[in-house]
Amino acid sequence: MKMDLNSDLGESFGAWSMGDDAAMLDIVSSANVACGFHAGDAAGILSTLKAAKARNVVVGAHVAYRDLAGFGRRNMDVASADLVADVIYQIGALQGLAQAAGTTVQYVKPHGALYNTIAQDRRQAMDVIHAIQAIDPKLVLMALAGAPLIGWARDAGLRVVAEAFADRGYTPEGALVSRREPGAVLHDENLIAQRMLTLVRDGVIEAVDGSLVRVEADSICVHGDSPGAVAIARNIRQRFEQEGVQIASFVGAAG
Amino acid sequence: MKMDLNSDLGESFGAWSMGDDAAMLDIVSSANVACGFHAGDAAGILSTLKAAKARNVVVGAHVAYRDLAGFGRRNMDVASADLVADVIYQIGALQGLAQAAGTTVQYVKPHGALYNTIAQDRRQAMDVIHAIQAIDPKLVLMALAGAPLIGWARDAGLRVVAEAFADRGYTPEGALVSRREPGAVLHDENLIAQRMLTLVRDGVIEAVDGSLVRVEADSICVHGDSPGAVAIARNIRQRFEQEGVQIASFVGAAG
Amino acid sequence: MKMDLNSDLGESFGAWSMGDDAAMLDIVSSANVACGFHAGDAAGILSTLKAAKARNVVVGAHVAYRDLAGFGRRNMDVASADLVADVIYQIGALQGLAQAAGTTVQYVKPHGALYNTIAQDRRQAMDVIHAIQAIDPKLVLMALAGAPLIGWARDAGLRVVAEAFADRGYTPEGALVSRREPGAVLHDENLIAQRMLTLVRDGVIEAVDGSLVRVEADSICVHGDSPGAVAIARNIRQRFEQEGVQIASFVGAAG
Amino acid sequence: MKMDLNSDLGESFGAWSMGDDAAMLDIVSSANVACGFHAGDAAGILSTLKAAKARNVVVGAHVAYRDLAGFGRRNMDVASADLVADVIYQIGALQGLAQAAGTTVQYVKPHGALYNTIAQDRRQAMDVIHAIQAIDPKLVLMALAGAPLIGWARDAGLRVVAEAFADRGYTPEGALVSRREPGAVLHDENLIAQRMLTLVRDGVIEAVDGSLVRVEADSICVHGDSPGAVAIARNIRQRFEQEGVQIASFVGAAG
Repeated sequence: MKMDLNSDLGESFGAWSMGDDAAMLDIVSSANVACGFHAGDAAGILSTLKAAKARNVVVGAHVAYRDLAGFGRRNMDVASADLVADVIYQIGALQGLAQAAGTTVQYVKPHGALYNTIAQDRRQAMDVIHAIQAIDPKLVLMALAGAPLIGWARDAGLRVVAEAFADRGYTPEGALVSRREPGAVLHDENLIAQRMLTLVRDGVIEAVDGSLVRVEADSICVHGDSPGAVAIARNIRQRFEQEGVQIASFVGAAG
Repeated sequence: MKMDLNSDLGESFGAWSMGDDAAMLDIVSSANVACGFHAGDAAGILSTLKAAKARNVVVGAHVAYRDLAGFGRRNMDVASADLVADVIYQIGALQGLAQAAGTTVQYVKPHGALYNTIAQDRRQAMDVIHAIQAIDPKLVLMALAGAPLIGWARDAGLRVVAEAFADRGYTPEGALVSRREPGAVLHDENLIAQRMLTLVRDGVIEAVDGSLVRVEADSICVHGDSPGAVAIARNIRQRFEQEGVQIASFVGAAG
Repeated sequence: MKMDLNSDLGESFGAWSMGDDAAMLDIVSSANVACGFHAGDAAGILSTLKAAKARNVVVGAHVAYRDLAGFGRRNMDVASADLVADVIYQIGALQGLAQAAGTTVQYVKPHGALYNTIAQDRRQAMDVIHAIQAIDPKLVLMALAGAPLIGWARDAGLRVVAEAFADRGYTPEGALVSRREPGAVLHDENLIAQRMLTLVRDGVIEAVDGSLVRVEADSICVHGDSPGAVAIARNIRQRFEQEGVQIASFVGAAG
Repeated sequence: MKMDLNSDLGESFGAWSMGDDAAMLDIVSSANVACGFHAGDAAGILSTLKAAKARNVVVGAHVAYRDLAGFGRRNMDVASADLVADVIYQIGALQGLAQAAGTTVQYVKPHGALYNTIAQDRRQAMDVIHAIQAIDPKLVLMALAGAPLIGWARDAGLRVVAEAFADRGYTPEGALVSRREPGAVLHDENLIAQRMLTLVRDGVIEAVDGSLVRVEADSICVHGDSPGAVAIARNIRQRFEQEGVQIASFVGAAG
């Protein structure tokens, strides 16, 4: 048994730091690295890429809307010509920095509002798919487990990996509980690790109503933006290691 | 006899257009394409790259300081870690878009204040050189003819092409006449074409004092930011063609 | 009889110019001046404000979403705390520059996507209304004639002026014809001037189906982003002057 | 005896937080609030202004070069027309937000590279002075004690307050020890408080060579960007209160 753990990294910007990249790179097998549009200045990104390379962590492009002030979390009605080119630009920039760091970009995970939008919105989803195909069709797309995006991308010929969220509640239908509802975010380290272990072993997560819902996940997203988040992620890794679940990227190896 | 003509392109940004890229791509053999830091949004850059590809014009990365409001024309005291990474980021972004356009980035020409600074400033010059080496040491550096930068870059193992400026006056020492001095900028189409023809044939330009100064130039920079500038550039091309000077990139061919 | 003519000005940015502010300031009585979020660098804004002051043209704050790359034309889901503060920030910045130019900001006209959104969307509309109240409740809000926004703002105690668009077609219900439909944009100078004259005299515009629709407009928006647009605006002014319609701001006088 | 304590606040940006504004507002009498060019988004600035108002802390505009990525710490060769307008824009924006927070901007303290440059560089210094005069000549300028800027600003008619830095070493000439030299930055809480007490009582600071140097300071700058920095600042306040030194702004009162 094996599972990928991924996390959003490289999200500092200039004088502002965010998250504990060094700690998270000791935990995860895949690093979603910011590309400068929602976060990440070039020197900081390069530093994170070198640290990922040093730990053999696989690197993905965490592409986003062009919105530093909103951290890429605000829905934006971006025209297709702009969205396609913006995504290519970001992947290319990260590829360049990855080259300098001795590693390569292996996958693309859209960030924030773009992530949520393309999970459901076919127009913007196809823009991101076309962008990936235009720069490198071998890049893997990381997408929300159960989202229509997964089918659209596979139909277009992309390899897709589906991800679950360690600290989020699920509806009986397999969707994430809205952050406006109770049970949206989990905080209990041990409960979270146990749920993820069940996901790996049985392919199911207990939904908020107590039912078991099937979630096809190739990767688990963990966060590192607070000490509590790092602790949750570390606990998952430790439990996985204790229980014989290998933590490994969905691609062969970094670089 | 042959000579490269280069021009700064892709410098529109969002709703703001600049220059006549289509006209200039019919004139030049090399396009210095903006990379988003001083000018250029991704969709506009991609469009320019596709147009360059369609005309078999060679593409270079027109990297700059991160200063949209100042169009990269303001000196900035950027630390080495930032400057190296910023240059890599820009080259990578352009490489990504070039890939999508079916072409490749063949050279790097720094823009504006960065261009002028690294011509003389060894610290920032080495930062740019290290950036190029880190992402692709086969990229050619385009630099001001006669500048110390040329030696530094060649010593570091880079291939360098030197450029002359079609519409600028030269000192007897082979430097550009300062824009604060009389004779800095030339406007006479025919005079300019004649001077460039002499440069190609004899390797010399008439300086402001009437003396002939030797200028080792592999490329001639022409501008396209006004109808007058386009006319000057077109006139050079026509004179070159009439006189049997082939206009061709210093690299074999585009893409 | 009198009518206000307004136009979007100060929309250059750094090295990029847009529109012919000098020509338009000879035509209009009110200048919607960019505040830096969708367009306008501080020096360019200041220059436009000084030119407006010199011609006694009244100045308004053309506030927008924070989106230079998209020119404020893309819908953005901005949280209330951000939208309120962003609007205050922009009005304050323009007030500061207006003070330096010897004039004062008299009204607020939201730009682009923000303009369209708040015409109908009560949440964002109230954010803009609250922003105006927080910085200066005497500022007038300029809004689309017939939009729900007008009632919301008046209910909140703001003075509102409604505007019609000179070069746009109207539906029989008094809404603008969508740009995706035929008849959305008019180009005939004389027809446009005649329609605006009818609007001033009779308060009606001929809709696309030939019916007459009542439009309560205190101001007419004209454009200056192309020579053709300037000509249309100038023609309206000339016809108005010939027919005895005074072109004057809805506020007493500039400054 | 009384003394002003000032600190840089409002320097968060979007999702990135910086410093502990709440803690510092309980310590200082003057808040240098970021204006959006080196740091500070509008909503965050507004929040800091409201917190300053609630504690009766006087507010100043912490104006900077337009350089978010470099946090305003990089020297930039900004033309006068731009620098003047950029400073006016920032002050105006902060005035607008201050109005919304029920307070007023009382002084201007340039930030980072702009602060250091104008201490010595007459051209840029006069640009900042002209900007202040253009928007409100009653605004006080806060400047480095002993800098030529103080004389230039006073000659121009501005009121100036000079500031000392609590945690910095001084040369026998009264300048700050360069950060590249030993003794540039002090860390001992009690020593720092004692030095500042001596400054208040006797107008002198012990220089790195042990000599006493006269420093004419109306305000002391303390930092809040780390828990250690907050502790140093709090210790100064406590020592001042114990020793009967009143901590009060150089202007009468907030708002």
